[in-house]
Amino acid sequence: MVGLSTAWRLAGRGLRVAVADPAPGSGASHAAAGMLAPVSEVSYTEEPLLRLGLDSLARWPAFAAELSDESGLGLDLRRDGTLDVAFGADDLALLGELGAFMEKLGLRVERLTGRECRRIEPMLAPSVRGGLLAPEDSWVDPRRVVRALLAALDGRGVPVLRERAAELTAAGDRAAGVRLADGRTLAAEHVVLATGAWAGPGGVTRGGLAGVPPGVLPPVRPVKGQIMRLRSPEPLLGHCVRGTVHGSPVYLVPRGDGELVLGATQEELAFDTRVTAGGLWELLRDARELVPGITELEVAETIAGLRPGTPDNLPLIGRTALPGLLLAAGHHRGGVLLAPLTAETVAGLVAGDGPALPSCSPTRFENVEETAP
Amino acid sequence: MVGLSTAWRLAGRGLRVAVADPAPGSGASHAAAGMLAPVSEVSYTEEPLLRLGLDSLARWPAFAAELSDESGLGLDLRRDGTLDVAFGADDLALLGELGAFMEKLGLRVERLTGRECRRIEPMLAPSVRGGLLAPEDSWVDPRRVVRALLAALDGRGVPVLRERAAELTAAGDRAAGVRLADGRTLAAEHVVLATGAWAGPGGVTRGGLAGVPPGVLPPVRPVKGQIMRLRSPEPLLGHCVRGTVHGSPVYLVPRGDGELVLGATQEELAFDTRVTAGGLWELLRDARELVPGITELEVAETIAGLRPGTPDNLPLIGRTALPGLLLAAGHHRGGVLLAPLTAETVAGLVAGDGPALPSCSPTRFENVEETAP
Repeated sequence: MVGLSTAWRLAGRGLRVAVADPAPGSGASHAAAGMLAPVSEVSYTEEPLLRLGLDSLARWPAFAAELSDESGLGLDLRRDGTLDVAFGADDLALLGELGAFMEKLGLRVERLTGRECRRIEPMLAPSVRGGLLAPEDSWVDPRRVVRALLAALDGRGVPVLRERAAELTAAGDRAAGVRLADGRTLAAEHVVLATGAWAGPGGVTRGGLAGVPPGVLPPVRPVKGQIMRLRSPEPLLGHCVRGTVHGSPVYLVPRGDGELVLGATQEELAFDTRVTAGGLWELLRDARELVPGITELEVAETIAGLRPGTPDNLPLIGRTALPGLLLAAGHHRGGVLLAPLTAETVAGLVAGDGPALPSCSPTRFENVEETAP
Repeated sequence: MVGLSTAWRLAGRGLRVAVADPAPGSGASHAAAGMLAPVSEVSYTEEPLLRLGLDSLARWPAFAAELSDESGLGLDLRRDGTLDVAFGADDLALLGELGAFMEKLGLRVERLTGRECRRIEPMLAPSVRGGLLAPEDSWVDPRRVVRALLAALDGRGVPVLRERAAELTAAGDRAAGVRLADGRTLAAEHVVLATGAWAGPGGVTRGGLAGVPPGVLPPVRPVKGQIMRLRSPEPLLGHCVRGTVHGSPVYLVPRGDGELVLGATQEELAFDTRVTAGGLWELLRDARELVPGITELEVAETIAGLRPGTPDNLPLIGRTALPGLLLAAGHHRGGVLLAPLTAETVAGLVAGDGPALPSCSPTRFENVEETAP
């Protein structure tokens, strides 16, 4: 989604754009639940990521409206808030502290008793003791967004070449385009690498882009996530619901058509996208504790995707040390949320009239010049 | 599988046979794990079913050898026994009583300590306290059997019409063939109804055979079973392993190619074949307690099928009250095990030289003549 969004915003600037992707939207976007939840996902150490998320969340309504208009397709953008719930007294105390931290950061959040939680979400387990509602957190259907982006790109005449970009081509000390896996070449003044978990040096032998000089690509590691899509005759929930069960976070994201997404495991297992017995078991165990009624729902799909993780959990957005090569990658759990910010930042940098995001600079890591490819 | 096996055995008698099935082998056989385990599945009240199972198990090796020879396809028939394990002291006592009951019935069974269980199955949970090994219990891959039967029927020139048998046709007070859903008719001296959970009066409006006079078809109810197929780089188990966890029986059936089948829920939910969150959760929870190592295995498939249940849990094999109409249905959990016995019994009845199975007679139920269609 990050790559297609960037292409769309670049095309919107009147630039000539081409996309090379053997299967657009089939990576992390295809598995993602689509939470746009910077508030409820805030953590004590990651205020810079929070600020990026809030910035991008503020861009989502206009981004979605424009994309829907242009493509004629709905995105199922929902702005109904995330409810983060607690079970035991300890959980409740932790959630209370988190609420205080959020308020200190100036975030809007509402503290609810267990009864108040069940009043707004009647399917919650009776054992829920309390919760925090982040009323401005939102969510979207990433697969609909991908379809809309492809339609919008098509409408603008942007070619989406169903082929892998195999190798960067250079002219002097500047990126000059890419060679596709089928041998064709695309010449370009700017190359934007948006290959998610495959964007780092470790992805090159796995189908990532070859030919980038050593030290230019920062490390990116794949963080596997398994999710389940359940099907309900009618929506079971009105908010995104999340909680920490058995020490691991679980969330449930309801869609307008009755789909309910359960996510997600976080596994550091290299380029492994197998759905496992243990992954499904963990999701079902934890989600059942939050919302016992999921038991009766049909399992529509199980899938695993790879999030692109970076050493500091911040994405890689902007110019690399190689002139002409930009990155739009490394978004870890935030690719959907951060797509508008990323796309608009990269478009501004390429057009030459927009600011960089220093916290996301691909050149920020020490020794990145020395990283072996 | 019951229907195709019967057709194959009928053809083997030199009779002219045609099969009508829109999707052969796609019903209960497609979901079945393929246990041929009359000993470990014995229950205190069902000695007649045990005797049928032992009879059919004794037929399986020759049935499989002949079918493999004729089709050129392997069936993955394994004769390595079922290990039924116990966790707590209560479970162990119950298993001990079951062992005594089995021995009283003259069944061969070995009592193992927890350590002995783990010696023959090292992946068993450390909490397993003991077990019963039924060394003659076997298993087979039902999908391979279906493929082999289709190949063998093809080799014998038996037409397998990919169309539903919609309605029985009659001549006087005798069955005379069927009308297919596409309007074609098949004339036949004998009609064998082998439509599994759809064989009873309740199945008629669900795609079962219409036109059977009231009272001829005994009640058959669908009993839903959900299973999972996991994929292992190499076989995790050498035996079928079963146990009772949280009061519900669970089994794991290993295949030669590393597939491991987890089964199965038993749900009385009419004609519902949805895979549910609760069904998968129950399977994973229970199977993990038996063999924790399944956690790491890939989930290859989740599927639900409908077992055909009868009021007394015995199958429906033989002549109905309507001359010319026979039944080969109602096998509940035993369709794969009982396929050879059923096929050979029906073939004998049609050819006029074989004995009936009185305990399985479709006319055995009181008031069956009065059952509304």
